[in-house]
Amino acid sequence: MRAAMFMVGVALCLPAAAEEGLWTFENFPADAVEKAYGVAVTPEWLEHVRLSTVRLTNCTASFVSADGLILTNHHCIESCLAELSSKKVNLMDSGFLADERHDERRCETQIADVLVGVQEVTAAVSAAAAGLDDQAANAARRKTLTTLEQNCEQTGRFARSGPVKCQAVTLHAGGQYFLYRYNRNDDVRLVFAPEADIAAFGGDPDNFQFPRWSLDFSMLRAYESGRPAKTPQHLAIDFDGPRADQLVFVAGHPGTTSRLATRAQLEFARDIVLPSTLLRNAELRGRYIQYGFSNPANEQLLEAPLNNLENGIKVRRKLLDALHDDDMLARKSAAESVLRDRSHFGSTDPWQQIAAAEERERVLYLPYTFIEGAAGFNTILFRYARLLVRAAAERQKPNADRLREFTDAALPRVQQQLLARLPILPEVEAMTLSFSVQRMREWLGPDYPLVRWLLAHDSPESFAVRMIAETRLADPEFRKLVWDYGERAVDASHDPMLELARAVDGEARDLRKGVEAQVDAPIAAAAARIAAARFQAYGTQVYPDATFSLRLNYGTVRGWTENGTAVEPFTHLDRAFARATGVSPFKIPDRWLKVKAELDPRTPFCMATTNDIVGGNSGSPLIDARGRLVGLMFDGNIHSIAGDYWFDAARNRAVALHPAILRLALDKVYAAHALLAELDAR
Amino acid sequence: MRAAMFMVGVALCLPAAAEEGLWTFENFPADAVEKAYGVAVTPEWLEHVRLSTVRLTNCTASFVSADGLILTNHHCIESCLAELSSKKVNLMDSGFLADERHDERRCETQIADVLVGVQEVTAAVSAAAAGLDDQAANAARRKTLTTLEQNCEQTGRFARSGPVKCQAVTLHAGGQYFLYRYNRNDDVRLVFAPEADIAAFGGDPDNFQFPRWSLDFSMLRAYESGRPAKTPQHLAIDFDGPRADQLVFVAGHPGTTSRLATRAQLEFARDIVLPSTLLRNAELRGRYIQYGFSNPANEQLLEAPLNNLENGIKVRRKLLDALHDDDMLARKSAAESVLRDRSHFGSTDPWQQIAAAEERERVLYLPYTFIEGAAGFNTILFRYARLLVRAAAERQKPNADRLREFTDAALPRVQQQLLARLPILPEVEAMTLSFSVQRMREWLGPDYPLVRWLLAHDSPESFAVRMIAETRLADPEFRKLVWDYGERAVDASHDPMLELARAVDGEARDLRKGVEAQVDAPIAAAAARIAAARFQAYGTQVYPDATFSLRLNYGTVRGWTENGTAVEPFTHLDRAFARATGVSPFKIPDRWLKVKAELDPRTPFCMATTNDIVGGNSGSPLIDARGRLVGLMFDGNIHSIAGDYWFDAARNRAVALHPAILRLALDKVYAAHALLAELDAR
Repeated sequence: MRAAMFMVGVALCLPAAAEEGLWTFENFPADAVEKAYGVAVTPEWLEHVRLSTVRLTNCTASFVSADGLILTNHHCIESCLAELSSKKVNLMDSGFLADERHDERRCETQIADVLVGVQEVTAAVSAAAAGLDDQAANAARRKTLTTLEQNCEQTGRFARSGPVKCQAVTLHAGGQYFLYRYNRNDDVRLVFAPEADIAAFGGDPDNFQFPRWSLDFSMLRAYESGRPAKTPQHLAIDFDGPRADQLVFVAGHPGTTSRLATRAQLEFARDIVLPSTLLRNAELRGRYIQYGFSNPANEQLLEAPLNNLENGIKVRRKLLDALHDDDMLARKSAAESVLRDRSHFGSTDPWQQIAAAEERERVLYLPYTFIEGAAGFNTILFRYARLLVRAAAERQKPNADRLREFTDAALPRVQQQLLARLPILPEVEAMTLSFSVQRMREWLGPDYPLVRWLLAHDSPESFAVRMIAETRLADPEFRKLVWDYGERAVDASHDPMLELARAVDGEARDLRKGVEAQVDAPIAAAAARIAAARFQAYGTQVYPDATFSLRLNYGTVRGWTENGTAVEPFTHLDRAFARATGVSPFKIPDRWLKVKAELDPRTPFCMATTNDIVGGNSGSPLIDARGRLVGLMFDGNIHSIAGDYWFDAARNRAVALHPAILRLALDKVYAAHALLAELDAR
Repeated sequence: MRAAMFMVGVALCLPAAAEEGLWTFENFPADAVEKAYGVAVTPEWLEHVRLSTVRLTNCTASFVSADGLILTNHHCIESCLAELSSKKVNLMDSGFLADERHDERRCETQIADVLVGVQEVTAAVSAAAAGLDDQAANAARRKTLTTLEQNCEQTGRFARSGPVKCQAVTLHAGGQYFLYRYNRNDDVRLVFAPEADIAAFGGDPDNFQFPRWSLDFSMLRAYESGRPAKTPQHLAIDFDGPRADQLVFVAGHPGTTSRLATRAQLEFARDIVLPSTLLRNAELRGRYIQYGFSNPANEQLLEAPLNNLENGIKVRRKLLDALHDDDMLARKSAAESVLRDRSHFGSTDPWQQIAAAEERERVLYLPYTFIEGAAGFNTILFRYARLLVRAAAERQKPNADRLREFTDAALPRVQQQLLARLPILPEVEAMTLSFSVQRMREWLGPDYPLVRWLLAHDSPESFAVRMIAETRLADPEFRKLVWDYGERAVDASHDPMLELARAVDGEARDLRKGVEAQVDAPIAAAAARIAAARFQAYGTQVYPDATFSLRLNYGTVRGWTENGTAVEPFTHLDRAFARATGVSPFKIPDRWLKVKAELDPRTPFCMATTNDIVGGNSGSPLIDARGRLVGLMFDGNIHSIAGDYWFDAARNRAVALHPAILRLALDKVYAAHALLAELDAR
């Protein structure tokens, strides 16, 4: 599954039962594991796992050799494959194997972070916000966190030759604040990827399905000072994999969950966010698919963005289905009542405050989404323009006064994104821009002032085609020039995209301020009160919502029962061949067909486990009690999508690649013998 | 607004207040009108209006001269314009004016029905169903209605030289049954249409908006035996139009409303029907738009289907918004409670029975929609194939045993549809078929047996392209041949589309039977019990849900207040010119720009009225107390969309074309002097 981002969660549920839980390493329920399975999770085991686990840009991964070799999903490195493809060679289609280390190719937009230090800073943050009103408190907290991050990075810089990254992590809706320190590897290179036809076998139809046969893995390598990074802490692979019902752990970075969202927040998602996002994405999917048909080259170019879009559509469809389950919403209300009764909120009920904020958000949501959220200017060239315009203005300000995404700590990443040489397809950019302006006109109305101004003498198409043709922002040299010269260059430029970003910036910032003041700040204040009450009632029996920070959970290898039919926990290679139709997305690459006779048809392929994972856990290692890698998470079953809101222990299953198929592929199909030797070196 | 079809409504609301009401002519509240406005609605007035009002295939219209001249909306005759266009002349773009009567061109798929007789048959239908269980009663009622229709048409045949059409009308969810007898005109010819640029000025962005400037009218003529039909009963036009606050009536054929739907039915629409339909339509819109860009000719060809799609999307989006109004749903529950308390249903509560049926429909809905509803085979060529396959089988059976759409009474219309020479665009058909098969795979899953069978060796695209290339059903001669030879021809044919329709027919019929038995029949029985209780409680103070049968309502010319701002009831020509950008959909045709100086800028263009109208009322005459036409309904404001579920008197407004702009257009822009003379002849 992909790291789809949803509403940020806050505020209340009852203590977790059984295997549910997105636990931090500091608060992992080792006692419960020992009691249920007789397995001791020691501090040494935890440290070994933590230092072996890697955070990529949108995914999780792990070190699997002492020389910085990284195992993750194929779908986590699609943008790297696009970046390294050319008109002649499409790496999505052909796959990639570096014959020698010097053939390994750098992915400019990829990073690999390892969490090396965790420090609680709740006291400092609370002190800074004490006695202030909601909005001022919000600002004070943000300022404090920015300063703490900055100090942490400056201090950390001495501890390591490579870069150090410090990030504030807010848990339990502001009940706890932490500083996480990462060793960052920003030189990450592509080592191996199979063909997309086998990596994403089953495509969108099989996405979030199990049984499953997708060889969704790839390999990268971290480099330091131009040489493979030394990674003494890494996971050895047990190619035999786990048994059914065996205890297994998943370490990783679940992206966002809303398990503690209040009922009012869930209803806002159900009535406003999900339907409007789904409708836009469905139409854009139609545009992409039809554009792809107009010539086969287009189809290849659009493969990765289309995959992402389809994944997002499937996720949101199922989230919407989940929120139409009135029983679950009633349980949410009941849990809110229980906590309300145990607590003493007096006349200012925090759930009512959140509900009132959501009423205000209903009014603000569409203009905010189209203008500040840039859903009305959907092209990477506008995103570049906005970055340049905003960075130029923000860099003039003292660090602590800036928008969060332009602090000194954030700027290197912003610069990296801005200057990366991503392939830019003018026709595709014009298509998405035209589409998004058209929909902005539809949803905000033709008489919305910004829409009238934009389309005074244009159709959405003519506007988009002209903008994309005339802007120079597709050229990374030009972007670098504007970045380097800052505000002067931005103000003087007649580049139409920069002019557009400048023209809408005032309104966009106003909308952001409006949402922060009327929605975010009151919700944060109310959610913090609920969180405090929740701590008082349940203590550390409860886990925090996901925030794309490191978590650990435990489960077992196990199927489930679907409409009365048992689903087995393992799939095998033979059924993949049986399922193939010869036509994408059910096409097995020739390389596999050629050696079919040499492959053991009973090789395990995928497996289902009861681990509680969500988007962002893609690429997570599945780990046994001895600390060995016994699988590679890449998806969940269809019931796992509702895991954003609640964990259904009976049916929610994670889906992992079995290490046996990984070995078989490297050995028999791709003849990647050096790699295999590196993996086998214990 | 277009005649979008939604779920059929049943079952409960409180008596209508004020100007709400889709009244039958037999039960029009003349006393209330007299009391409020001092205007007497006489039986003569009612008969004059009824005989002047026309039912088209999907719309309403009216006779406006003694020679069969018909006034309706431009958007009601789009399929006629497509049918009569050629590669050289696109009538959507160019418009059309017949210089002489012999230039008037027949629209093969259009009909014009006039309601000439109404007979209540409730007693006969009830007697036939007495003592039977739900499903048997449903079947007995259908059989009885078919027989009654048949007898009515045979009897009626002697009264008239042209065809006579009898149709059973079920009102109040089976509380009353009627036979409506129509004089049918099946020779209907195109007389006048303006260019689409002015007829649909504002396009999708302005659809369901007011203020408004769309010249949405066109003219047809009914012919009898090759000569213009004699229509002594017709509406004279008062080109001065009505004053603000004047009493006005609308006669027409509202398509479907769900005002009496139970809460469970509304929730089914909210959770299942609307989201899934919207998602499919949004994606298809993306496909159409992108296909249009691939060459300008495509764009023209897709104009009419794209308009329909966009209209449906806007309607459903607003319906979904309406159903997210928890207050309105709470009012619905409250009204159900009031009626429940006044009635004595004992242990079998009919609302609970409907809720249980909707639970079953949740399971059946997707396969039913894709297979029996043919959403998975979305091409007119499959619809032809199914018609041929089913007609061949059904025609063998006794009339009363057939599926309703293949009774003797229905067959002529089926045949007319089947043999009409509609333009068929193979690329567009392949695109929609490919799209719909792809979505069937998505929603039913790749392992659904029919999906597996269909795509065993194909992608949705290769399947669709092959099917469209190989079928001969685009040829009307071939369709006629198969129709004439019946079951033998169908069984022997190797036409792949006929083979497909044959192959899926068993499963499709089973799904239909399942829905009829598990959903429709129990809902019909429960709804009839609620309807009976409602009659007992409120008598004829309540009006029946819309069923595309003739209705009359009253209202006044009036604006409303939107977010504190008053919206005036009239718009004028000057603002249309001010609104033009020169780019579609805000482009004013050259013919208008050339004579702009001669046009009075203060000519009234459109107006808002408080009449209660819905889809199907498009083309309805707006009529004054003297029985003159004072406007042409073509849309409602955005709040009118929720009129499917409830009438919001404060904000729901109908939108009409003012007769002054109609006269100005015919006189100054199109120089249609003969037509104008015909309209002016009193």
